[in-house]
Amino acid sequence: MIITSVSNNKIKETCKLKDKKYRNSTNSFLIEGKNLIEEAYKKNLLKEIFVLEDNNITLDVPTNYVSKEVMKKLSTTDSIPVVVGVSHKKIEEELGNRLLILDNIQDPGNLGTIIRSSKAFNIDTIVVSPNTVDIYNSKVLRATEGMIFHINIIVRELETFINDIKKDNYIIYGTKVDGGTNVKNIEISSKYALVIGNEGNGMSLNISNLCDHYLYIKMNNEVESLNAGVATSILLYEMDDKYESN
Amino acid sequence: MIITSVSNNKIKETCKLKDKKYRNSTNSFLIEGKNLIEEAYKKNLLKEIFVLEDNNITLDVPTNYVSKEVMKKLSTTDSIPVVVGVSHKKIEEELGNRLLILDNIQDPGNLGTIIRSSKAFNIDTIVVSPNTVDIYNSKVLRATEGMIFHINIIVRELETFINDIKKDNYIIYGTKVDGGTNVKNIEISSKYALVIGNEGNGMSLNISNLCDHYLYIKMNNEVESLNAGVATSILLYEMDDKYESN
Repeated sequence: MIITSVSNNKIKETCKLKDKKYRNSTNSFLIEGKNLIEEAYKKNLLKEIFVLEDNNITLDVPTNYVSKEVMKKLSTTDSIPVVVGVSHKKIEEELGNRLLILDNIQDPGNLGTIIRSSKAFNIDTIVVSPNTVDIYNSKVLRATEGMIFHINIIVRELETFINDIKKDNYIIYGTKVDGGTNVKNIEISSKYALVIGNEGNGMSLNISNLCDHYLYIKMNNEVESLNAGVATSILLYEMDDKYESN
Repeated sequence: MIITSVSNNKIKETCKLKDKKYRNSTNSFLIEGKNLIEEAYKKNLLKEIFVLEDNNITLDVPTNYVSKEVMKKLSTTDSIPVVVGVSHKKIEEELGNRLLILDNIQDPGNLGTIIRSSKAFNIDTIVVSPNTVDIYNSKVLRATEGMIFHINIIVRELETFINDIKKDNYIIYGTKVDGGTNVKNIEISSKYALVIGNEGNGMSLNISNLCDHYLYIKMNNEVESLNAGVATSILLYEMDDKYESN
């Protein structure tokens, strides 16, 4: 049977997952496209899928076939995906030794890119402030290219969190345009956290004050700053290299 | 006098600049927001501005005041800017020694980010293939954060162009996931070009075959690739460092 009505109850319920509050209350989120569906399935998080009629996707989860019109309703993009699904949120894992802390990142594309780069450069856990854009936002998920399922991500009040991990001997690195250390020249600690601030305003002052060291990326002085996703990725890339050669 | 009609001839003409063909035929383009306006003005490229009523911007160029409705018509974003302007396209400069070649980059945000990073890491000229997204697209311009006015950018048929610069002793670096050299370990040539391919498909084969060396970025093997803007920026960052220490 193919669901053809956009007012079908299951479709209406599923569409509510476009809203952050509903994602939080149900502890689940919407994913689009084969790539994300496969990653969720591999991690045993996939609850249910909706497949566009005339397509064939056989996964061992409840499967609904839907018309083009219904798929359009479920999707958040202009192009109509072949499959969308509902995934459980991931269970929190242990912190590990290498953390990235995000203080109020607002652009979904930047956050998704940062998640992807964090996995590439061996971050164990990403810690996001409650005012950072939701990691389960569809634009964020798309930009992660599936890496959302490959890295531990937790939401915390940052001031408390940073004070706690400092007691546990993590070294805290922030960023600073003036007066910091070129990231090329640092000696990295065996347990650390890198803190990245908001795109326009940087770290909040109370967080900045908690940092042990400040880093910068050397660049042409006609350029004020890099894109936040790029700057974070370069720092992660360089810190990964230092860590490996420790 | 304030222009209040969206059917005003000057407004209609200016709006045509949202179309690439019209930008090409008039050799000019539309810019939005104070930052880009200032950069265009400093480079003597600003032709004319449109200022939102009740705002005051005094620059030595023809200035039109417009209503909110007209500004909305001129703008390409949801938020209404305080000022939009028409800028001449830049005049082509000499190539210099350090080139970035873009083969069919399609995402405007990626291209803008790459332009910004290119200036940060001291590229002299960016060479784009004719099928790359237009550098004067509004989303590209926004992502450059004004850097469009600080770097030489030219459009060329890449195969011919690369063959020409090879005769002139430029060394051509491409990218490859397998079988290349870690960018950390290269010795960089005094005249070079880095070639970056399309987001999904990489470099076209005929271009790839023209490369002298292939580079890769070391990363976690669960990750297939980085965002194109990030990967390009990391390569540029590392190559700039090698170049400086040559």
